[in-house]
Amino acid sequence: MSKDYRVAILGATGAVGTELLHLLEYRNFPIAQLKLLASPRSAGKEMTFKGEKFVVEPVKDGAFDNVDLVLASAGGSTSKEWAPKAVEAGATVIDNSSAFRMNEDVPLVVPEVNPQALELHKGIIANPNCTTILMAVAVYPLHKVKPVKRIVVATYQSASGAGARAMEEVKTQSQEILAGKEPVTEIFPYPLAFNLFPHNSPLNNFGYCEEEMKMVNETRKIFDDRALRVNATCIRVPVLRAHSEAINLEFYTPVKPDEAKDILKLAPGIKIVEDWQTNYFPMPIEASGRDEVLIGRIRQDISHQCGLDLWLCGDQIRKGAALNAVQIAELLVEKNLMQPVRAQLTT
Amino acid sequence: MSKDYRVAILGATGAVGTELLHLLEYRNFPIAQLKLLASPRSAGKEMTFKGEKFVVEPVKDGAFDNVDLVLASAGGSTSKEWAPKAVEAGATVIDNSSAFRMNEDVPLVVPEVNPQALELHKGIIANPNCTTILMAVAVYPLHKVKPVKRIVVATYQSASGAGARAMEEVKTQSQEILAGKEPVTEIFPYPLAFNLFPHNSPLNNFGYCEEEMKMVNETRKIFDDRALRVNATCIRVPVLRAHSEAINLEFYTPVKPDEAKDILKLAPGIKIVEDWQTNYFPMPIEASGRDEVLIGRIRQDISHQCGLDLWLCGDQIRKGAALNAVQIAELLVEKNLMQPVRAQLTT
Repeated sequence: MSKDYRVAILGATGAVGTELLHLLEYRNFPIAQLKLLASPRSAGKEMTFKGEKFVVEPVKDGAFDNVDLVLASAGGSTSKEWAPKAVEAGATVIDNSSAFRMNEDVPLVVPEVNPQALELHKGIIANPNCTTILMAVAVYPLHKVKPVKRIVVATYQSASGAGARAMEEVKTQSQEILAGKEPVTEIFPYPLAFNLFPHNSPLNNFGYCEEEMKMVNETRKIFDDRALRVNATCIRVPVLRAHSEAINLEFYTPVKPDEAKDILKLAPGIKIVEDWQTNYFPMPIEASGRDEVLIGRIRQDISHQCGLDLWLCGDQIRKGAALNAVQIAELLVEKNLMQPVRAQLTT
Repeated sequence: MSKDYRVAILGATGAVGTELLHLLEYRNFPIAQLKLLASPRSAGKEMTFKGEKFVVEPVKDGAFDNVDLVLASAGGSTSKEWAPKAVEAGATVIDNSSAFRMNEDVPLVVPEVNPQALELHKGIIANPNCTTILMAVAVYPLHKVKPVKRIVVATYQSASGAGARAMEEVKTQSQEILAGKEPVTEIFPYPLAFNLFPHNSPLNNFGYCEEEMKMVNETRKIFDDRALRVNATCIRVPVLRAHSEAINLEFYTPVKPDEAKDILKLAPGIKIVEDWQTNYFPMPIEASGRDEVLIGRIRQDISHQCGLDLWLCGDQIRKGAALNAVQIAELLVEKNLMQPVRAQLTT
């Protein structure tokens, strides 16, 4: 008989937190006790889990006492502050922020790709960046059979990646523009409605933004392949909650589209969406609310004999964040890896 | 003293036709006589040119008698039918459709790139595809100095590429979705508001859509470089009238970003838009209504030593169509190439 766990969600009121709560219920995660935590600003809000009302508590010292599992999605600085304390208090933390992802002592896990990495965890497990997760699910099954040398990816990222308020902002801006008014910007630096712009995370000296470097470095870590080369261009588009990616793969040896399709058909977490007669391929509105990464337009790159193109859409909040975290939690249960571990993190 | 020309616009009432009329006035093209032509459905509509009202006439036999220059933007089948007749009647035709672009006897011209190609025209000159024009303006100045071996491009194409009604459809669908209604689709096969999808032109046996093959074949023809390799992924996005492109260039030898930037700064038809501190780069709302192709995020591709990335936005209706056609017309005047030419087209 399976044990039940005392679970806390940190950042429960955000877009990902809300989805975490939904998925824990929907997937019937074995919960003995649930605690919803958020910043003092969001504390006091009521949320429902399996018909029962829970009041969101402010995160504070002692909040993680008697908690087995923390699902954290409250931003990097919150995670940096509270995740080590939660581990210290005996909990295992699955962290959705970028705070610990590149830490050598922290496994960075996509369950379909590198579940084995979980076994070495020291209390904190990092949930990868959303665009990275979606690409990893799509590319790894191919990479495992025919190694990928280089990825050139351009993204079409929805507003949800910047949170629930960003999604509202796009809708409000659309209304303003349709009414002939100037759109108001609060979350994003520029209007996103009927517009798009490069991802507005800080740029490094090479001109790559943080989001792009996440795709580069996290993919290498998840694939455990430091030779893999990745070039990413991340663009925010006026879509609500699913990301899309145009992925160009260069393999070491030629890979036929049919061969790739046969591999992807059998791969976990993927649904092939292709009707070449009607130009029907993955679309963000159809990926929204779905678990699978939708993949289509698998075709030979006519500019390179070892090249292959594919197009994907995936729910940014679900597989790009909350679902991946819950799948990690399920793996911890399955592998019996959620015992208290004393932190030995080099932060 | 310059001669004035008898000009006809075929497809005057469309998005591009309207812009053609505007640009002929704005740029003070030497017009002796103006004729506005459209399908019988649009005939009868009144349009204004330099304060004078013109009634749109239906295109029919004899419509091109005593016309020196035809600017055609009424779709491929209309051009196929009427362009040869116009040439037969003594006019020179600048055609915005894809009907004649790959015809060996027809120059395919971007004035900033291959103005010399005009000199061999036999009555019809083709205006390239919009995404192709924007990419050509951005890439050719680099290619001329340091040859490009391969281009991998992902596009973010606005609704305007499918015409004025498509732009209205995105706005209407946005209103419907914001009001909680199902969006109605008429022009596009799928809802475009808060969504995006691969360009819905017919797909070839390799899985490339027509729009993508235009970028491949037209770029090679404009650059007069059949060795150039191009891989394109064309995506329609919920933006109104400017296209964006994420372009990855592979040169034969390494090109530093600063070197590329210096070349592009001096190149015609380009404006560099970059503020790395504020993540300010080209955006479609800022490219709309402008002549220049906005280019930014010129950076080393960290996945390839001969790779370089750039990001561009350009007004699809203006430089992507109407402006390029008017610039061709201006070149014809300047080079005195608009004399009647008997057609010897191999159609």
